[in-house]
Amino acid sequence: MGPIASTGLKPGRDADWKAPSAPSPMEALLTLISSGNVLSFALGLPASELFPRELVSEAATRVLESNQALQYGSPQARLKEHIAGMMSDRGYPCSPDRILVTTGAQQALALIVRLLLGEGGSVVTEELVYPTFIQVLKPYKASFMTVPSDLRTGIDVEALEERLAQGVHGAFLYAIADGHNPLGVSISPSKRRRLAQIARQYRLPVIEDDAYGFLCYDGKREPPLSAYDPDGMFYVGSFSKILGPSLRVGWLVVPERFLRILSTLKEAADINTASLSQRIVCECLERMDLGAHISGLVEEYRRRRDCMLDAIRRHFPPGTTCITPSCGFFVWASLNVDIDTQALCMRAIEEERIAFVPGASFAVGEHAVARSCLRLNFSNCSPAKIEDGIKRLGSVTMRMLQSSRRSE
Amino acid sequence: MGPIASTGLKPGRDADWKAPSAPSPMEALLTLISSGNVLSFALGLPASELFPRELVSEAATRVLESNQALQYGSPQARLKEHIAGMMSDRGYPCSPDRILVTTGAQQALALIVRLLLGEGGSVVTEELVYPTFIQVLKPYKASFMTVPSDLRTGIDVEALEERLAQGVHGAFLYAIADGHNPLGVSISPSKRRRLAQIARQYRLPVIEDDAYGFLCYDGKREPPLSAYDPDGMFYVGSFSKILGPSLRVGWLVVPERFLRILSTLKEAADINTASLSQRIVCECLERMDLGAHISGLVEEYRRRRDCMLDAIRRHFPPGTTCITPSCGFFVWASLNVDIDTQALCMRAIEEERIAFVPGASFAVGEHAVARSCLRLNFSNCSPAKIEDGIKRLGSVTMRMLQSSRRSE
Repeated sequence: MGPIASTGLKPGRDADWKAPSAPSPMEALLTLISSGNVLSFALGLPASELFPRELVSEAATRVLESNQALQYGSPQARLKEHIAGMMSDRGYPCSPDRILVTTGAQQALALIVRLLLGEGGSVVTEELVYPTFIQVLKPYKASFMTVPSDLRTGIDVEALEERLAQGVHGAFLYAIADGHNPLGVSISPSKRRRLAQIARQYRLPVIEDDAYGFLCYDGKREPPLSAYDPDGMFYVGSFSKILGPSLRVGWLVVPERFLRILSTLKEAADINTASLSQRIVCECLERMDLGAHISGLVEEYRRRRDCMLDAIRRHFPPGTTCITPSCGFFVWASLNVDIDTQALCMRAIEEERIAFVPGASFAVGEHAVARSCLRLNFSNCSPAKIEDGIKRLGSVTMRMLQSSRRSE
Repeated sequence: MGPIASTGLKPGRDADWKAPSAPSPMEALLTLISSGNVLSFALGLPASELFPRELVSEAATRVLESNQALQYGSPQARLKEHIAGMMSDRGYPCSPDRILVTTGAQQALALIVRLLLGEGGSVVTEELVYPTFIQVLKPYKASFMTVPSDLRTGIDVEALEERLAQGVHGAFLYAIADGHNPLGVSISPSKRRRLAQIARQYRLPVIEDDAYGFLCYDGKREPPLSAYDPDGMFYVGSFSKILGPSLRVGWLVVPERFLRILSTLKEAADINTASLSQRIVCECLERMDLGAHISGLVEEYRRRRDCMLDAIRRHFPPGTTCITPSCGFFVWASLNVDIDTQALCMRAIEEERIAFVPGASFAVGEHAVARSCLRLNFSNCSPAKIEDGIKRLGSVTMRMLQSSRRSE
């Protein structure tokens, strides 16, 4: 045993979350997927072929005409102005001064958690949560107060209020108002208003994860939740789904009084967001018609979504239900029978080389319903592959259903 | 008062480190420097004109021929192999599997602190420390056990052992063996060996910050401290001083048993290091003669160092002492008289538009000697500017010295 394991690490922390030999279900999946020729509906990858690659390449060349492009740099003021313009289009006008550029949306989440959560604190989430957000919380040994969600209408605001009225206290609420991950649901304007009221009344800060908020497929896009209480909410945005995740540029819109401390936390985390990436993004935004680019993405992703919903309807066992996601990258399919989708996932990879994420991977605690659900990504496969993959996944599901019925 | 300030934030944390209206001395300096035409010896910036800009631009173009360059991506295996090769040249051969690519050296430091330190834990540092590392520790409300350092020989290893023998316990020791920031000192092979022995004996993990370790100016470069106990030390490296900080690519070499947990912490921090940057760095390393490039950097930085030492000798008050730094970007000048260099700094900016960082900015606690010292960066100015700037800074110092003697 080396010197560190026995003393340097706090024993509690060591025992609680170090777990050196247990990869997360997501990691295990990733390993399986990357190990062979697997058709993946698992991850939330944008379509590589829809990235504005030539534009980014030209922007990089242009930016690299100056030596300063490789130097340390302050956050790009011009980039913040562009983001402010995007936020205005998004229905949440804000001053560039309230924007903090981050190393992707993930770092934005991590910084806000660092700001609001102390070790052993408690947080409020839905019962089903984006797993990489949960990873941020683990080192804090946080306890969870969970709120149920409805597949059609999203987070149960009345249940939230009930718990808060009972005196439950949290460092923050983590919420996705548009294109929920994993459920795909977006919440109504009246629910946004109510949620903002309750959060304000009970002084519960809100972290709004809007990673998918610019990709809405059905008509009018609602202003984000944060627009209903800019003074109590932390808005998280990202260029990952619009320009490309490998740039690692996201942003925060925060109440002004937290800017200084967040800048300090940001500097401690990685000095600043790669200023080469910042300059490239800025140059792209100046050269492109962003609205037209987003419209193009929306059109193609809508086509893939519809193709997936249609294929599920035709190939999955009768009784399977999906809600049409109006935003984001995921279809949440409920089999509505007693099939463990974790077992189904392993079988689908083995028999058909097809991957998805089982519903249980998103559950903060036990979640009986999620056990028979699948999160299916539609953004990263062509319609032809979606049709083929869902057909084969449907047939594995049917076989599994039949064999489980035989064994009853 | 908004909803968050009064409830969401833990009151203790709020009071201890939020300090919304107090910029750090470094931040205040940065604001001053960027506000006008200031000749800066303050920051640790590499020379922009020495970046291999055209190479980076060609690499970016080449990399961006593939759509995958903008997609999420696993850490680049090829990049890790290149880094392993560099580590071998550095005198610390290691398997690519023990390398974790990070968003600059700063993130590497933040991840290791996240791994080793619990809230309210204690850490071991020298009395004078790189301030942005201290920023990482603040949210943990860590207590400090400090060890003195000698300007000629570096960290006082005997004092360290004495304290550890007294039962002082720390989550880790933060150390710079080559090109200490701010002192410029590098420690001897025998001291490295002794330090490694003591750390192992008292089971004290070591974070070795080797940001400047590839830029050594006087003959033989020693293997890093980590080479003396790979199983108990965390080595932090960086491309910032070699290729360009705006890429934000650094790395860790860690004991194998911590790889999984560190990968998880890394994913939580920002998913992965900008894979565009990773691919560009990798492409550069494949196209360039890294050894020749580093030799070129070393030659020019050595010239600037010598120019600065010579100028200080000629223009600063008699009695000023400097140790010749064999590595890194800084000269630590001790005035050896009762002049507060914080006041000198303000006066130098006002009267001569020249900036440096006052010694007290690096002190973890009170530090009487550091109060009359200056950290002077020599990497970011041409020899002509160094001569001119040091001459003017010397004259402000002389004036201040004379006026303080008159008032005595």
